[in-house]
Amino acid sequence: METEKIILGVDPGTMVMGYGLISQKGKSLSIIRMGVLKLNKLENQAMKLKTIFERMLEIVEEYKPDEMAIEAPFYGKNVQSMLKLGRAQGVAMAAALYRDIPIFEYAPRTIKQTITGNGNASKEQVSKMLQAMLKFEEMPKYFDATDALAAAVCHHLDRGKDVNYTKKKQHKSAASSWAKFVEQNPDRLSKNP
Amino acid sequence: METEKIILGVDPGTMVMGYGLISQKGKSLSIIRMGVLKLNKLENQAMKLKTIFERMLEIVEEYKPDEMAIEAPFYGKNVQSMLKLGRAQGVAMAAALYRDIPIFEYAPRTIKQTITGNGNASKEQVSKMLQAMLKFEEMPKYFDATDALAAAVCHHLDRGKDVNYTKKKQHKSAASSWAKFVEQNPDRLSKNP
Repeated sequence: METEKIILGVDPGTMVMGYGLISQKGKSLSIIRMGVLKLNKLENQAMKLKTIFERMLEIVEEYKPDEMAIEAPFYGKNVQSMLKLGRAQGVAMAAALYRDIPIFEYAPRTIKQTITGNGNASKEQVSKMLQAMLKFEEMPKYFDATDALAAAVCHHLDRGKDVNYTKKKQHKSAASSWAKFVEQNPDRLSKNP
Repeated sequence: METEKIILGVDPGTMVMGYGLISQKGKSLSIIRMGVLKLNKLENQAMKLKTIFERMLEIVEEYKPDEMAIEAPFYGKNVQSMLKLGRAQGVAMAAALYRDIPIFEYAPRTIKQTITGNGNASKEQVSKMLQAMLKFEEMPKYFDATDALAAAVCHHLDRGKDVNYTKKKQHKSAASSWAKFVEQNPDRLSKNP
């Protein structure tokens, strides 16, 4: 019997937070669900953090992911926005820590590189590559959902820098890119392009 | 019967995290406990975040505080350290959010101003004022513990900027400083200075 591994991808933001769940059974990869939490209409930061924590905890309890992959920009606009982003990341991570789920983090560039073979790919290119790969019909309204899914798929393909690691793991981006992967594993692609 | 209100003060850091619990019954204020979580020996960030979340949750479950007051610097060294600090704050806040405890945040300067009447007071001055006020015998080894206690006492005295507020509340620092408060309420001070 093939064991199933579920990866939860998260693209944390203070306005919209994306999430995506994939299931890996042996050699096949499938999408379970993706979506966003809209935070921009919540009136204050406390409500945003509370919403992130509660919804992430619900997702963790419902799907019991084995691992969490998080898109983590390390450089940003200014200290104030980084503090807010850190808080949003922190409460999302707390939901995983609560259930002892290991967390892996990836820089946006690494995710793009791994999925498309180009670290500067657009969000549209990333989402189209994911659509071809995972065969979902409808493109979600928000790129935050596909970005989260991309983090999960990147982790599946790359198994990169685990925040549990003391030392940063070297990324072998070119070798582990999805484009290259497709080349090497045509059987794992769907019939339609 | 006088109702008791418990305030949990937190001074979040990525190396040492301080906490302090105070109890307010009618007009009297007393210390329940203070201490620190030492994070500097933990080998990586994931372990630190996990430790913060778990220990804060334990404290929340054990003492069931009515409110949390957090020392929150809004300006810091660089974006990288602010992201880390934000994560540490986020997981600490998640423990409170988990139990629907309202969170209030105070800038370091506001806390110092409120406790000592001087926004530039040293950590030593703050801790000595707290010792006189709350009559604890032994000064803790780490200022992080007294800083956390200070956040709780500041909240008790000031009731400042709630993160639940949409608009920032104006701080009436001079009027609400502890020094002034002592002046106006000599009966609430202990016998020994």
